[in-house]
Amino acid sequence: MSNYCFGVDIGGTSIKIGIFDKIGELLEHWEIPTRKENGGENVLPDVWQAIQKKMEERGIRKEEILGIGLDAPGPVSEDGIIYGCVNMGWGTFHLVEAFQKISGVSLIKACNDAKVAALGEYWKGPCQGCGSMVMVTLGTGVGGGVILDGRIWMGANGAAGEIGHLTMLSNEEESCNCGKKGCLEQIASATGIVRIAKKFLAQQDTPSTLRNLPELTAKDVLDTAKEGDGLALEIVEYVCKYLGMALANVCCVVDVNRIIIGGGVSKAGEFLLEKIKKNFNMYAFHSCRETEISIASLGNLAGIYGCVKMVLEEIEKGA
Amino acid sequence: MSNYCFGVDIGGTSIKIGIFDKIGELLEHWEIPTRKENGGENVLPDVWQAIQKKMEERGIRKEEILGIGLDAPGPVSEDGIIYGCVNMGWGTFHLVEAFQKISGVSLIKACNDAKVAALGEYWKGPCQGCGSMVMVTLGTGVGGGVILDGRIWMGANGAAGEIGHLTMLSNEEESCNCGKKGCLEQIASATGIVRIAKKFLAQQDTPSTLRNLPELTAKDVLDTAKEGDGLALEIVEYVCKYLGMALANVCCVVDVNRIIIGGGVSKAGEFLLEKIKKNFNMYAFHSCRETEISIASLGNLAGIYGCVKMVLEEIEKGA
Repeated sequence: MSNYCFGVDIGGTSIKIGIFDKIGELLEHWEIPTRKENGGENVLPDVWQAIQKKMEERGIRKEEILGIGLDAPGPVSEDGIIYGCVNMGWGTFHLVEAFQKISGVSLIKACNDAKVAALGEYWKGPCQGCGSMVMVTLGTGVGGGVILDGRIWMGANGAAGEIGHLTMLSNEEESCNCGKKGCLEQIASATGIVRIAKKFLAQQDTPSTLRNLPELTAKDVLDTAKEGDGLALEIVEYVCKYLGMALANVCCVVDVNRIIIGGGVSKAGEFLLEKIKKNFNMYAFHSCRETEISIASLGNLAGIYGCVKMVLEEIEKGA
Repeated sequence: MSNYCFGVDIGGTSIKIGIFDKIGELLEHWEIPTRKENGGENVLPDVWQAIQKKMEERGIRKEEILGIGLDAPGPVSEDGIIYGCVNMGWGTFHLVEAFQKISGVSLIKACNDAKVAALGEYWKGPCQGCGSMVMVTLGTGVGGGVILDGRIWMGANGAAGEIGHLTMLSNEEESCNCGKKGCLEQIASATGIVRIAKKFLAQQDTPSTLRNLPELTAKDVLDTAKEGDGLALEIVEYVCKYLGMALANVCCVVDVNRIIIGGGVSKAGEFLLEKIKKNFNMYAFHSCRETEISIASLGNLAGIYGCVKMVLEEIEKGA
């Protein structure tokens, strides 16, 4: 009898699902759209339907499912309560119990998406078994996960790894989505990069290709900087200054073995990485200066890997 | 047969030594001066001599010693190598092996003083068994220790908890002792408070009692602020703004259950604490806003308690 696990990465636009064997090898992965209407009431039933369809296709019986791991872009407690998820229109509810009820599968694990992505990268990425790691996810927002002794460190309130909400600018006047002012997310997320770019464009009258673009995106800023546009380069340097400083500060607290940069913005690759490293080196405490920083390797599959790792860890604990 | 442990907190001016029973009750503590001359070559022999004298007094044989824990104000690796200690004139050497050789006692543990103080406070202070804790020590410098799941988190390079070297001011021009610029230590240590006070006094011509003091100390600044002096209050507010922000940032990374403020500066007590809390609350991520912050309870005994806890943990591990 073979056994299977499913990893389900619930995002605001699509839901990524992966089927894994019992030793954690990914067999197949696919996506379904996220139906957010009516407070996201269809999301979990849609997930279970998609899993059932795959089980039928492969002739898998329910008893052969070891467990299912879920993640979502919101704060999730260790026992699986999600404290609201704006993207999905979800309020606070017991995500694990809800999905147990829908699926009839008893081993369900749930966690915040950025934390789970960090676990996935730790498990299958280049820092496999390195001991401790921080992953920062530069997407629409800035998320993060802290892995200590190979496990997700949740923190007392599930807020460990909220690197996007490190206060970096003490004189910022605009508010972050979290309600505070001067958060890293306001500088280094995709929306943050655009915000900073607009500020630079308004404050200076240097000519720049960026001025000709109808609707500015973070990718535009990074691509234009790569092409050598002076103002775009200045913007990217500014973003990387605070990103490097934030990561150096993270190391003063937990001093991890590795740092991983993920999320859409990280697709700028070596160009971005080299600037982050330069600034990290400048702001890091001397004994952490050599900490390795690299770009995430699993792309948008980190979530489903991390979800399944949670399930396998739970099985190991029980064994 | 009773058994004993010794805790030895090696400081730049004096060495605190405590004798504990095998369940970790402090029986007696005393101090000896730190003889720093000749590269601090007398420090460890002096410690062993002091311990031997106490053993004679109490009629304790060497076989009755369970172990000895040491701390010093420098970076110490998990296996007990100290990477220099400016205060003592020490270079890099194997502190544990050196003290094993001098004493003939096999169970010797060693760690950085701020980390060990955090462990001592966690063990015997008000947050006993709370799970996770950060202690920041505001002394000549700013030290710190991170306790996760009840254990000191050392970090990949022994730099976890180096809270004094979080970069807080990106435009600072003076250098910190660590070589970087804009560290928390430059603002919130006893020397940092004096530095900031001198800046405020030079930049403003507001009358202030501080101007009449021949040699300004951090205690002067805090005492004068308590008495209601406007400029002194402004200085303390500035210090507490960055201290509160730094602690809020620490919580975005590790989200601990409790925060403890120790060191000489913390003697300002409730007056200081209330201002730190106000700023922490302003800069903390919403889910960490209620994290309890308190003043350390063991005073300068935290070190010897933590030293002995390391020894008892090692015995438990072996058992």
